[in-house]
Amino acid sequence: MDRRSFLTKAGLASGAVAASALATPAISQGKMELKMVTTWPKNFPGLGTGAQRVADRITAMTEGRITVKLYAAGELVPPFESFDAVSQGTADMYHGADYYWQGKHKGFNFFTAVPLGLTANELDGWVNHGGGQALWDELAGGFNVKPLMAGNTGVQMGGWFAKEIKSLEDLKGLKFRMPGLGGEVLRQLGASVVALPGGEIFPALQSGAIDGTEWVGPWNDMAFGFYKVVKYYYWPGFHEPGSGLACGVNKGVWEKLSDSDKEIFKAACLAENNYMLSEFFANNGAALDTLINEHGVQLREFPEEVFNAIGKTSDEVVRASVTDDIGKRILESYLKARKNIGGWTRISDSAYTNARDKVLGA
Amino acid sequence: MDRRSFLTKAGLASGAVAASALATPAISQGKMELKMVTTWPKNFPGLGTGAQRVADRITAMTEGRITVKLYAAGELVPPFESFDAVSQGTADMYHGADYYWQGKHKGFNFFTAVPLGLTANELDGWVNHGGGQALWDELAGGFNVKPLMAGNTGVQMGGWFAKEIKSLEDLKGLKFRMPGLGGEVLRQLGASVVALPGGEIFPALQSGAIDGTEWVGPWNDMAFGFYKVVKYYYWPGFHEPGSGLACGVNKGVWEKLSDSDKEIFKAACLAENNYMLSEFFANNGAALDTLINEHGVQLREFPEEVFNAIGKTSDEVVRASVTDDIGKRILESYLKARKNIGGWTRISDSAYTNARDKVLGA
Repeated sequence: MDRRSFLTKAGLASGAVAASALATPAISQGKMELKMVTTWPKNFPGLGTGAQRVADRITAMTEGRITVKLYAAGELVPPFESFDAVSQGTADMYHGADYYWQGKHKGFNFFTAVPLGLTANELDGWVNHGGGQALWDELAGGFNVKPLMAGNTGVQMGGWFAKEIKSLEDLKGLKFRMPGLGGEVLRQLGASVVALPGGEIFPALQSGAIDGTEWVGPWNDMAFGFYKVVKYYYWPGFHEPGSGLACGVNKGVWEKLSDSDKEIFKAACLAENNYMLSEFFANNGAALDTLINEHGVQLREFPEEVFNAIGKTSDEVVRASVTDDIGKRILESYLKARKNIGGWTRISDSAYTNARDKVLGA
Repeated sequence: MDRRSFLTKAGLASGAVAASALATPAISQGKMELKMVTTWPKNFPGLGTGAQRVADRITAMTEGRITVKLYAAGELVPPFESFDAVSQGTADMYHGADYYWQGKHKGFNFFTAVPLGLTANELDGWVNHGGGQALWDELAGGFNVKPLMAGNTGVQMGGWFAKEIKSLEDLKGLKFRMPGLGGEVLRQLGASVVALPGGEIFPALQSGAIDGTEWVGPWNDMAFGFYKVVKYYYWPGFHEPGSGLACGVNKGVWEKLSDSDKEIFKAACLAENNYMLSEFFANNGAALDTLINEHGVQLREFPEEVFNAIGKTSDEVVRASVTDDIGKRILESYLKARKNIGGWTRISDSAYTNARDKVLGA
């Protein structure tokens, strides 16, 4: 994903009158209307629809006593001002990917995804039971935001390439679109990395301005039609192994909620955390099947030499990304989780699915 | 896991006076008290505490308007009468593993776990987005129960062995404890399979009455102290690759709930589905570390030849397990999900964690 991907739509609203800086939600006759801004276009599959489900779930569970009104990217504020809007009280809550706020603090990356980092299940293990939530509360709390995990894309694909990647040499000079820390990794390995908005990727591929791109996964990528121009689709992605999506609530709003309503917000977000991940799992499988069997996509695994180099550089980039106290504590806690929880993944989910695939001849 | 494991505690209540067969929940002054029976001992780690969280979440979200009172195994009815109790209205809801009801219909196995079946993420993909919920509604609905997914243990371990398993020959005559379809698989491969209750496993291992046992995973297994007697701990488990736990609600109770309260029930269960799985991930990692480094447990991978034979037999046992119309439709839908969603797992989570482990030298 890429924060700039949504700027095209967001641009439409950039000239809109700024919403009044309400410090408190609208309350009338015991009813509360909360504004949820998002970084996603309206009903963007999985992400936008997931945000809508969080909003609708809260509204439904409170029978409209609390109505959460969703504003798509740019409708109330430009998408990447979502965090500031909630921090300052212009909006009451946001749904987005917290690595979009890495300009404020690199520590936010860890609560979405970092290269060679945690998968969705591991991330949830860390956040829910490994000290992650307390660190996140501390980091986001410093900006007047209460963060809740509210969705996950699962492992993203390595991306689309015009030519096969057979060795590290093939990365040198490659014009590739990848944002964030992942892009920095490829840059260090000699690629010429750009961060085009989503809507500009397809024409750039078609004109040859770029040789390849990453986006999300089969379900989302198929909609963009990249397979019409480039045929090599690489796995596994190294850069976003399970992107967690956040629901951030203005702290003043959060603290005014009754204990009961706090439970409703938490459950609405945790529920989406499960539901959205399962949606990506289900739809990616079917979309991958279609891409291969109907669109002639050539699925390729990164050669071990290439992934190893990418992985080693990833680890260096991630470790160097934070320098202050809270950043270092987040990094340390995260790496501990990667070791402990990752050790479990290795002999549980990974080992099982590897062994199952051999039996099934997949 | 094993349904008989809880019979020891359950036995205490088997002579108790049957609860009055209320067909409707207790309602007074707009408040409703619901009885949740479970198949777990009080606060059994992960499972019992998870059931308690579902109950508490509903109570908290409704501010006590709906109070869900949890009855541990045997407190109101014997644990394996939980389903009948809810079906008949003696209790309003249960939390348990639906494969405990395979005596009523083998189709229930698919909504918990079957050998060589779906992982937790894949199961959720199937249930939430692949047609699983509709089939489950149909199956359980025939027994007057509305089923909701409400927890998952993740991949279970292959189990504890006194001696190393180096070939298929080593399974022949092995006295091993494993319940259900998994036990049937081992039986067909020549093992002498027993299904001891949990509390009887340790003494049986100590006396040499059995040569090995499966239970759940490091977090739960460590508590039973198997490592004191047998040292070889095998991965990956083939028999329960992601055991889903169900919250079943009496259909009359479900249909009386307002739309808003139905959303509360659904969110409470989906939230637990995420939270419990992440708890097993987080705690299994730490427990595994302790087992290996402090208790001298020898972690072993099943030889490929052994797992392949187990896997092939698993597939035959599972395919043969259902024979009627609804059973065959469940099987067909489940196998389609294993192919499509499993295909995605192979190149996403599995491939990524395999490649990550190589980079990290794990």
